[in-house]
Amino acid sequence: MPDIDLIVREIAEEMRARPDRGDVATYIPELARVDPAGFALAVVDVDGHVAVGGDADVAFSIQSISKVFTLTLALGKAGNRLWERVGREPSGSPFNSIVQLENERGIPRNPFINAGAIAVTDVILSGHQPKEALGEILRFMRFLADDPTISMDDAVAASEQRTGFRNRALANYMKAFGVLENPVDYTLGVYFHHCAIAMSCRQLALAGRFLAHGGRNPATGHSVVSPERARRINAIMMTCGHYDGSGEFAYRVGLPGKSGVGGGILAIAPRKASIAVWSPGLDASGNSHLGRIALERLTQRLGWSVFG
Amino acid sequence: MPDIDLIVREIAEEMRARPDRGDVATYIPELARVDPAGFALAVVDVDGHVAVGGDADVAFSIQSISKVFTLTLALGKAGNRLWERVGREPSGSPFNSIVQLENERGIPRNPFINAGAIAVTDVILSGHQPKEALGEILRFMRFLADDPTISMDDAVAASEQRTGFRNRALANYMKAFGVLENPVDYTLGVYFHHCAIAMSCRQLALAGRFLAHGGRNPATGHSVVSPERARRINAIMMTCGHYDGSGEFAYRVGLPGKSGVGGGILAIAPRKASIAVWSPGLDASGNSHLGRIALERLTQRLGWSVFG
Amino acid sequence: MPDIDLIVREIAEEMRARPDRGDVATYIPELARVDPAGFALAVVDVDGHVAVGGDADVAFSIQSISKVFTLTLALGKAGNRLWERVGREPSGSPFNSIVQLENERGIPRNPFINAGAIAVTDVILSGHQPKEALGEILRFMRFLADDPTISMDDAVAASEQRTGFRNRALANYMKAFGVLENPVDYTLGVYFHHCAIAMSCRQLALAGRFLAHGGRNPATGHSVVSPERARRINAIMMTCGHYDGSGEFAYRVGLPGKSGVGGGILAIAPRKASIAVWSPGLDASGNSHLGRIALERLTQRLGWSVFG
Amino acid sequence: MPDIDLIVREIAEEMRARPDRGDVATYIPELARVDPAGFALAVVDVDGHVAVGGDADVAFSIQSISKVFTLTLALGKAGNRLWERVGREPSGSPFNSIVQLENERGIPRNPFINAGAIAVTDVILSGHQPKEALGEILRFMRFLADDPTISMDDAVAASEQRTGFRNRALANYMKAFGVLENPVDYTLGVYFHHCAIAMSCRQLALAGRFLAHGGRNPATGHSVVSPERARRINAIMMTCGHYDGSGEFAYRVGLPGKSGVGGGILAIAPRKASIAVWSPGLDASGNSHLGRIALERLTQRLGWSVFG
Repeated sequence: MPDIDLIVREIAEEMRARPDRGDVATYIPELARVDPAGFALAVVDVDGHVAVGGDADVAFSIQSISKVFTLTLALGKAGNRLWERVGREPSGSPFNSIVQLENERGIPRNPFINAGAIAVTDVILSGHQPKEALGEILRFMRFLADDPTISMDDAVAASEQRTGFRNRALANYMKAFGVLENPVDYTLGVYFHHCAIAMSCRQLALAGRFLAHGGRNPATGHSVVSPERARRINAIMMTCGHYDGSGEFAYRVGLPGKSGVGGGILAIAPRKASIAVWSPGLDASGNSHLGRIALERLTQRLGWSVFG
Repeated sequence: MPDIDLIVREIAEEMRARPDRGDVATYIPELARVDPAGFALAVVDVDGHVAVGGDADVAFSIQSISKVFTLTLALGKAGNRLWERVGREPSGSPFNSIVQLENERGIPRNPFINAGAIAVTDVILSGHQPKEALGEILRFMRFLADDPTISMDDAVAASEQRTGFRNRALANYMKAFGVLENPVDYTLGVYFHHCAIAMSCRQLALAGRFLAHGGRNPATGHSVVSPERARRINAIMMTCGHYDGSGEFAYRVGLPGKSGVGGGILAIAPRKASIAVWSPGLDASGNSHLGRIALERLTQRLGWSVFG
Repeated sequence: MPDIDLIVREIAEEMRARPDRGDVATYIPELARVDPAGFALAVVDVDGHVAVGGDADVAFSIQSISKVFTLTLALGKAGNRLWERVGREPSGSPFNSIVQLENERGIPRNPFINAGAIAVTDVILSGHQPKEALGEILRFMRFLADDPTISMDDAVAASEQRTGFRNRALANYMKAFGVLENPVDYTLGVYFHHCAIAMSCRQLALAGRFLAHGGRNPATGHSVVSPERARRINAIMMTCGHYDGSGEFAYRVGLPGKSGVGGGILAIAPRKASIAVWSPGLDASGNSHLGRIALERLTQRLGWSVFG
Repeated sequence: MPDIDLIVREIAEEMRARPDRGDVATYIPELARVDPAGFALAVVDVDGHVAVGGDADVAFSIQSISKVFTLTLALGKAGNRLWERVGREPSGSPFNSIVQLENERGIPRNPFINAGAIAVTDVILSGHQPKEALGEILRFMRFLADDPTISMDDAVAASEQRTGFRNRALANYMKAFGVLENPVDYTLGVYFHHCAIAMSCRQLALAGRFLAHGGRNPATGHSVVSPERARRINAIMMTCGHYDGSGEFAYRVGLPGKSGVGGGILAIAPRKASIAVWSPGLDASGNSHLGRIALERLTQRLGWSVFG
């Protein structure tokens, strides 16, 4: 039986030493300050054992990884009616593309591109004040990770509020087609803030456990979603979780995963483990460069690819 | 332990009785004649046991399912240099779209859309006469299925030769960018013919076994590809195997799969089974309507989704 | 010599009687209330004689026709540096398309599509408060028409402020690429207000005289722009003045022209006359249906097409 | 009164001396051999006087300029039914773009992009052998220029036959949508050959006279088309004659014109003159670099812009 602790530590050491680290995202000014040398990896297996390597307790901005959790929340609220407002097909386009919206009457291709996640946020917000929606999302993250210390980084949220013109364009465009129901500023406010949730790899891996174990958190025994819904969220992570690099991630890593421009990736090994990795440098598609390589190593050494 | 034989028979009976059957493809005149009432399902497990339901020994035109096998052959010839001529990302577009080619200098997004499969065929053809290439492809299919009776349906190939203007446009367009090396007519001739291979569900499921079992056919003991390559082909089937319905297939079925406009689908349950289904009526994305529903039933009842 | 007064009256009578009137724009709620039966035509010849037919003194919302005048103003401020922020090619796309912006780094194709006119407005605004910029635009219109009564319809501006999500998307998108320098809300505020200028056909035809006469208003003797600039503005009106109906307008009418969704069109017969027409019903490209037909009649009867 | 002979000679001298000459087209191998130093200008006024400068009797490949004449012929055959197969709007895209065809069911935007001219050629061909159609086109050119020596350059036609994969893609794509009626190879054969017509500037300017004079050749008295049709062809030349550089040509030159990749441009000064210019070096949009500048000079000095 493989020694997961050893493997995780070895991968973390290899990654910390590599010179090729990708480029830290600069389009959100606050994120541009992050040290590209950071690296962390955390794996929670079915028994709740957490294997860690690198800065596994350093918090980073989860950014688009929050989209997995807001999708879960919105499905809980709207059920399958959610799919009237957002598709579930890979877009074949960059994360912030607006072309597809024009051609498809404002319906985003999937919940993991920016436009789709804004539409999902609008569903969560529905009928509430932004503060209430944010409170609900934060409580959900704390509940999933069983950790009341998780919080939002207001400086990051404010930074994107000031500069997120492209997301503002996406939101107004969907509003023009009636895809958003709330005031654009409300929906974007909630969106920018949930992207600014700060978590460590340890916390993130713990929060993702329900997706690896049929919708249930094995530690707490809480059922978060049905087994079918957990499978389906994983499926969307597999086909859409890395924007126009989703095919590459499936090809190399072989697990459902969701990346964020903060450099984090949440990956799910169904029935085996929930995995979080972090390295701030990104590749051309906006996904963590070393994060992806680390996950490729991990699945190869453990034989965890879902593809055999 | 579930009784696969019983489950397969029950699904076949349910599907044969359903009134919603999709629409038989008409763009290849010869295919338009097929009876929409046909249905078949075949599952080959790790021990070689074949569970069948419906017309499992009736041959149909495998069409684009052949792209899985030509990709395997071309990777054997060109190795990773193949990826200089074709990508491996979902296209987010219909199977015969040409827009993406114009924007990306003639490089098709993946080997499972028509343009990509034509580029793959060009790699197989390289340095040979069309007849030799076709002979090689046919021998490979017979070897994989361990069945020397598999053949091509010349009437179907001729029908598409006469009417396949859109594929001819794709091929000439790639030729303009230097992506094809052989004369366009040679490459298209081989492409139309390998799409016209006729196989039954039983034969197709047997031919796909190497993908379920680490690249090795457990019956013959022959190693077809390395375990890593088998995983990677499965990954491309998962993200790109159903054109702009790939996300939907992953979401509902949860297995790597490849469809053809003849109504067939090959699906792989890694480490468990190779599965073939056939029903000629198609959905809006050009994938078998009942074939997809049958696979959804099968994976639900057997718990075979790779997503948990 | 043709009797212009008679021809104008006859055309107005024919148009008022026609049953096919197009559809009044509904996307700005305030505009949707306009009576589709309205029609007016005014022609000012080189001697200053104004031939009128129909409701030539009824004010309507000039909407995008204002883009001709803001372009003139912005060229006066920025000169040819304006062309660093906006192109001068037909877009081949609808007036509010965003696709082209994504593919061309936020630079609008021409100053007469919405995105381009917003960029032009941003140039006029530069370094001023919105109120000052609006004052300047209004003074310019009054100066051109030699009529101090011209004003803005605040209800129309407010209506578009509340509902103009698509323009808001365009503006934010350009802001993301650095094409806009001022706060998005400032630029849009000025844009929505100058589109809400209300003018009659008589006033509009008078305001356009400088374009027909080498940049000089023959009535006042004021030189507005150089002869070369007048020609060039006319050229852009010819190729881009009617969105994706520009080719059709050139083909049928044969004059440079600019339409607005309020149903107005300003057309220029170089060296001969400035022409304004108004009929609120629009065709599929968003241009006045009867307005275009009336201009076609007029140029045929007077032999005014620039194309021979 | 300006001395046209002097002006034409001075412009030709200036152009011959300029170091910036653009790049000779290389995508048709036979054209790549042309000497970039060539320059010619010919102006035929209403009285039939021909002012010439430079190599006005050197024949060059007229390439896409032939599209003006095939459009004229096809309108003579099909009348306004031609517009069911091709539009008349600027495309906003390069001359050989295929994207627009996919989005608009195979109907080309206008008769002056490659796809549109192929569709027009198909109309001329209808019901004839390629040789007959080519004979008819050549006779028409000789008739228009009143010069029986005009011929096709078979080496150029053969060169494009061998390498015109992109045009072959366009034609097959339209065939797939039913926009072409004849065998693709027939239509393309005629298309490649009429593009390979060789003419001098003198011949070309003479051939274009009917467009400047209400559809009638003032020299021969022959009526080629109605005055309305002549105006309309001029209108399409204005909005679509220079691909995605049409706006620029209208802005700078102010005349209807049609360019070819051989470096020629035919421009029409309605009621005044027919003008041909030739310089083989092209700009980024595929239009003659010095040809356009020479025409800009000419219209400025003679005050011939249609825009005032």
